[in-house]
Amino acid sequence: MQKAAVIMAGGGGTRFWPVSRMASPKQLTKLTGDDVMINETIKHYDGVIPRENTFIVTNEKQAILTDKVIFDEVDRSHILVEPVQRNTAPCIIYAAMTLKKMYGDALMAVLPADHHIGNIKEYERILNLALDTAEKTDRIVTIGIKPTFPSTGYGYIKVSDGLSDEVKALDRFVEKPAYEIAKTYVEEGCYLWNSGMFIWKVSVILEYFKKLLPDMYAQMEAIFDDLRTDKEADAIARVYPVLEKISVDYGIMEKAEGVYCIPADFGWNDVGSWDALENVFPKDEGNNVTVGKAELLDCTNSVFFDSCGDKLITAIGADNIVVVETKDAILVCDKSRVQDVKKMVDHLKEVGREDLL
Amino acid sequence: MQKAAVIMAGGGGTRFWPVSRMASPKQLTKLTGDDVMINETIKHYDGVIPRENTFIVTNEKQAILTDKVIFDEVDRSHILVEPVQRNTAPCIIYAAMTLKKMYGDALMAVLPADHHIGNIKEYERILNLALDTAEKTDRIVTIGIKPTFPSTGYGYIKVSDGLSDEVKALDRFVEKPAYEIAKTYVEEGCYLWNSGMFIWKVSVILEYFKKLLPDMYAQMEAIFDDLRTDKEADAIARVYPVLEKISVDYGIMEKAEGVYCIPADFGWNDVGSWDALENVFPKDEGNNVTVGKAELLDCTNSVFFDSCGDKLITAIGADNIVVVETKDAILVCDKSRVQDVKKMVDHLKEVGREDLL
Repeated sequence: MQKAAVIMAGGGGTRFWPVSRMASPKQLTKLTGDDVMINETIKHYDGVIPRENTFIVTNEKQAILTDKVIFDEVDRSHILVEPVQRNTAPCIIYAAMTLKKMYGDALMAVLPADHHIGNIKEYERILNLALDTAEKTDRIVTIGIKPTFPSTGYGYIKVSDGLSDEVKALDRFVEKPAYEIAKTYVEEGCYLWNSGMFIWKVSVILEYFKKLLPDMYAQMEAIFDDLRTDKEADAIARVYPVLEKISVDYGIMEKAEGVYCIPADFGWNDVGSWDALENVFPKDEGNNVTVGKAELLDCTNSVFFDSCGDKLITAIGADNIVVVETKDAILVCDKSRVQDVKKMVDHLKEVGREDLL
Repeated sequence: MQKAAVIMAGGGGTRFWPVSRMASPKQLTKLTGDDVMINETIKHYDGVIPRENTFIVTNEKQAILTDKVIFDEVDRSHILVEPVQRNTAPCIIYAAMTLKKMYGDALMAVLPADHHIGNIKEYERILNLALDTAEKTDRIVTIGIKPTFPSTGYGYIKVSDGLSDEVKALDRFVEKPAYEIAKTYVEEGCYLWNSGMFIWKVSVILEYFKKLLPDMYAQMEAIFDDLRTDKEADAIARVYPVLEKISVDYGIMEKAEGVYCIPADFGWNDVGSWDALENVFPKDEGNNVTVGKAELLDCTNSVFFDSCGDKLITAIGADNIVVVETKDAILVCDKSRVQDVKKMVDHLKEVGREDLL
């Protein structure tokens, strides 16, 4: 059965300003690897899914940028353009129907565009296991990350005994917990971080849509004949604005039965804010991470990110500081305040510096 | 009697890196005013000494740079070039002999090239008083700054009753004190900061040289006829390397008798390191100083200095941080570490980044 990767890449993302911009959001910027994050995502599954079978769901503006940077092997007709954003369920059914039209049925791996994977070999092994399980069992398969600390920033998945030692049964999804609760999650061992990676057969997920989101299914089925034809854009433009705005998590995953979850440990990081670079890059003796070039004296626990190279970053005695340089902006941020980078973006909007956004 | 300002401007200065450079030291950079510091120094005495009567003693390399930036009114033949650095006494006698050659006698104010004056009106008043006192009494006159805090970074002058309420007798020079001693100095009221500003008649200071540094006086007197002729450069090149390396403070001031000192309070700051900008520029509600442009969120007690303008400095939650941007470098420095900027300069030398020095 054909294997396809569907990358959801419509997000805006201001948390990595000044590197990420409205015009070039996180997945289209180079943050943790040698290439832009979406290409790193494709590289991750090179050993499992052919690059040619990559599908990307994105918006009109980003489709143009994606076209410019993405690997040549990715067929440009696989860039599915959403005319308006309707959350993730429409995005998934659009991709699933496209795969049905092209392949009849297929194994479909839904993957976030902008996560970091440290251990590619293990990731390949887990992804193969997930695809294999989805193919053999006709179940929805998710990948859960074994938590390494009591994160209050991630959603959790509770699992229990399932198909095998490695393939657990998904009991329920759990919202981002308070710190004390997160601590018990880590201790109990049956809670995993929700990685946002879902693997299923196209035929299986479409059955779920038919059952759980019947209106959306009917609306999309009505234009099925137009997909992969020159009528597709018009049909999508017509139907998309009336699709229900609902996430696949809420609309399908939380209601689906018999979902499997594979606990995994492959150096996953969702790279959610500047401090995440600490967990992705090696640190120096002062516990600093430097990406690009910087000269440091007595600095500790800090992050230096130079995406530009025309001005040397130097620092003396900096502690818990994030310093970022791009071609037109410098950010100096206390590490405890990285979640507020978006506030700076808002502030720059207010003071009329849209040129920097 | 002619009044002349002699500006000693040979210093290197790495404390304001990356703004000050080997090629453009502090006095030739724009730090606290609208113009480079040496021109600000000239502007300070505009109401007292004509710009035309400005004399600058500097080295060969900086003479070229000074020529480029200094006010047009300053006669370029007034830039006295030292072929080698022999500390401040040779510098002073060279200027004094030059003035003797040109004017017979003159009132000479020796002024540092790179200090900030907040209250120009009061500075003019004090400078006039000093010149007047020097003219009428044939004494050496110094200006002492009323201390505003127990500085351990300045030398002090102890004064007692002298000519008048405003013109005190200089008892002795005091080395940089320990903090506890500095505190008593501030309380006692008879200790002043040594501003490095000296005012005297040319004839008076030359008498002191003749008496206290007789060799140096004889060596310079031997080439007196060559000064202000086309033989001057050769004569200076011959005699300068054999002049004693000694400061005017140690060689003359500490031994001179009957020196007057005028206590002053005109918003003086020697602008010794990046944190000094806090005492020169107005602060925002977060106690930050911004020179140039920066956008700040929740920053406190920090200094932002953009000498360049091509990249916007932004900061979130920065506390006690100095951020400096120039065309080729960015410095992020904990404010308690501004004295170590020269260590960064040394470090950059070590790692082969002389291009940034």
